[in-house]
Amino acid sequence: MEVLRDKASMRAWSRAQRADGRRVGFVPTMGALHEGHLTLVREALARADRVVVSVYVNPSQFGPNEDLDRYPRDEGGDLAKLEELGVHAAFFPADLYDGEGQAPTATSSGRQLAWVEVEQLGLHLCGPSRPGFFRGIATVVTKLFHIVEPDVACFGQKDYQQLTIIRRLVSDLDFGIEIVGVPTVREADGLAASSRNLRLSAEDRVRARAVPASLELVSSLVASGDRDADALLARARALLESGGARVDYVALVDTEKLAPVHHVSGRVLVAVAAWFGDVRLIDSREIVAG
Amino acid sequence: MEVLRDKASMRAWSRAQRADGRRVGFVPTMGALHEGHLTLVREALARADRVVVSVYVNPSQFGPNEDLDRYPRDEGGDLAKLEELGVHAAFFPADLYDGEGQAPTATSSGRQLAWVEVEQLGLHLCGPSRPGFFRGIATVVTKLFHIVEPDVACFGQKDYQQLTIIRRLVSDLDFGIEIVGVPTVREADGLAASSRNLRLSAEDRVRARAVPASLELVSSLVASGDRDADALLARARALLESGGARVDYVALVDTEKLAPVHHVSGRVLVAVAAWFGDVRLIDSREIVAG
Repeated sequence: MEVLRDKASMRAWSRAQRADGRRVGFVPTMGALHEGHLTLVREALARADRVVVSVYVNPSQFGPNEDLDRYPRDEGGDLAKLEELGVHAAFFPADLYDGEGQAPTATSSGRQLAWVEVEQLGLHLCGPSRPGFFRGIATVVTKLFHIVEPDVACFGQKDYQQLTIIRRLVSDLDFGIEIVGVPTVREADGLAASSRNLRLSAEDRVRARAVPASLELVSSLVASGDRDADALLARARALLESGGARVDYVALVDTEKLAPVHHVSGRVLVAVAAWFGDVRLIDSREIVAG
Repeated sequence: MEVLRDKASMRAWSRAQRADGRRVGFVPTMGALHEGHLTLVREALARADRVVVSVYVNPSQFGPNEDLDRYPRDEGGDLAKLEELGVHAAFFPADLYDGEGQAPTATSSGRQLAWVEVEQLGLHLCGPSRPGFFRGIATVVTKLFHIVEPDVACFGQKDYQQLTIIRRLVSDLDFGIEIVGVPTVREADGLAASSRNLRLSAEDRVRARAVPASLELVSSLVASGDRDADALLARARALLESGGARVDYVALVDTEKLAPVHHVSGRVLVAVAAWFGDVRLIDSREIVAG
């Protein structure tokens, strides 16, 4: 496995692969790799001849009171996992912005002037509580796509809003890249795999089971004929709150625009964000109302 | 010369060239090709093994009261000129947006949700009188770069603010593309080559000489020691207005941020936009104060 640390050598490596007729797959991550990431990597390995995994904790998607500094970092562990899976190149850039010590954040542009914005899709779900978050993601993914120049890139369905925004920027901006959404990996207790799970106390880890349980509840109520979104969401919220969660949102939205629906019909997404102590977890599940 | 009309065949052509080890040059245009464009094409031919020229009148950079419908179109003439120069591929897309009859404009997004915005650099010069103009340009250039995937792209210095914005989005978003700025081509009477020159009446054509003359005036005044921007701009404005122009702006700005300077020192840009009848002309000139 090659370990690349600057943009120019990353691009040169990738171009050399493509010049040899190889299909390049890409998995962008923020490191602290867990089974969710490794599933994305396996998917990329199945779809490409050479796979690049990037590890970069992107400052431009973190707000001033968010957990950039506490975001877990484990370069040695990450490298070992990637090597074992048979990844061909690991991209560990020190910095992706020409910041001169003034890195952009979700709410401050620093020296970065060019941004990719995706309208409408950031209005709901995580948008209101994380201003600038999706601008940061859309921009860093664009930068990484331009540096790695992959043929195919894999993203988790767990970050459903992010995946929806990336699919849209790829189609609206005509990137020549196939985007693959990979189903959420769950741990034994049902929690969606997330590096933030590691920060939960033992008690909160148990309480957090209410998150996937609330999605299950809505899914089963819809399966049994309930269609009124407000009533469904009240049931889900009550379940979460009775379990000790501080709910950021619980929502039923359409899967294209991610806008709230009042009556459930066809394919919808039920999505939750909730705090346990100082850890914010998100999860979601597509439901098809028969 | 290949004539390509859809995104997929354009990208396939370009990838085939690069797979053969050839360097691809690109000149995006809105057609009605004149000597200014042809100079860009010659520059691209000198810098690349294969050259693509696109002709697409981009709706997302025109405001509701601007001249999208009157923008000159001459596909036959354009093709003949490109063929004669030895261009390898002409890209004439019918549409670049998935509009379903609802194309975006400078002030209305239509179905396009993803946009590239470049902060600060659109605040001055043409920005105030053309809301959304540079968002439309930054976005369509990004789309074209993703479709054509060139190694090098040529733009005219005549559209100085556009060139500055494109250079910035290429560096901030890490495009692997070299941007070449090509000096302004002037017609015999000093006017910067522009397809809008064709729309001037005979009288306005004569009056419009005041545009390059005002740039010359500021340049010569600076050379003779004048440094006060307000005084210099008053002289330029008076020259333009006495010649019958309706001045949109005449400005002295720094060449990096394009923000107004009050005292001329080092390298600055003097820039003009002025109306003659219903035709708006722009021109600019770099000046170095000794």
